[in-house]
Amino acid sequence: MDTDIGFKAALEEAKQGASEGGVPIGACLVSAEGKILGRGHNMRIQKGSATIHAEISALENAGRLPASAYKGATMYTTLSPCDMCTGACILYKVKRVVLGENKTFVGGEEHLQRKGIEVVNLKNAECEELMKKFVEERPGDWYEDIGEGSK
Amino acid sequence: MDTDIGFKAALEEAKQGASEGGVPIGACLVSAEGKILGRGHNMRIQKGSATIHAEISALENAGRLPASAYKGATMYTTLSPCDMCTGACILYKVKRVVLGENKTFVGGEEHLQRKGIEVVNLKNAECEELMKKFVEERPGDWYEDIGEGSK
Repeated sequence: MDTDIGFKAALEEAKQGASEGGVPIGACLVSAEGKILGRGHNMRIQKGSATIHAEISALENAGRLPASAYKGATMYTTLSPCDMCTGACILYKVKRVVLGENKTFVGGEEHLQRKGIEVVNLKNAECEELMKKFVEERPGDWYEDIGEGSK
Repeated sequence: MDTDIGFKAALEEAKQGASEGGVPIGACLVSAEGKILGRGHNMRIQKGSATIHAEISALENAGRLPASAYKGATMYTTLSPCDMCTGACILYKVKRVVLGENKTFVGGEEHLQRKGIEVVNLKNAECEELMKKFVEERPGDWYEDIGEGSK
């Protein structure tokens, strides 16, 4: 079992988002057995959506599942999860959140840990680069996505 | 300005959800000026969705908005918000969450307050009754919605 399939898929999703002109963040939910349950990317620009962040997209694409399906699961995401996506991981009680980077943005990592969810930061340069470019080129879209005014 | 329009709309949404055979929870996001920005209801059953809870639905139906649009806003919901919906309210920094009841389920109320968001519980009998009936008749669907095994 290769646990890296989740991060690889999340990064592919982030790049797909970038190629669509969207916020370049991807995510992938992997079961305890190492099976991809769902993957997706941020759809703010593509769908005019305020809620389809990458992790929400991955959970949504996984479809309706019983609580048992999330047991021992890992949420891979290319960026530290915002408060909403943090809450979604807590709701479904995933075991672990593996994030690509938190240099661009630090989300609910402490809250995840407080709830007993393991947090791993890969400090991945490709994830950082995707976000650096996006924030520099389109600060308005980025700050809107995290509920902040443009800076 | 009638601040009750938000709760009225949320309750209508919950009843609409019930009439569709869905989880009977509704929500409505109202701006500081008293304008309805978005309203919606839980779509787990109707759309096979793991993420379209009532508050997410209201935020999604409000569409893409700048951070300023949420300033001073109130999220009305017929039930105490789960961790995901709590996080969504924190992400967009609404001022207040008004909930119909928390007898059926207590969500992230403390976390909201910790983040400086006011929480008001209306202890509404109609909201309680809608959920009581649903949980009694369809416990499996209900526990799935809150990420719990059937009890």
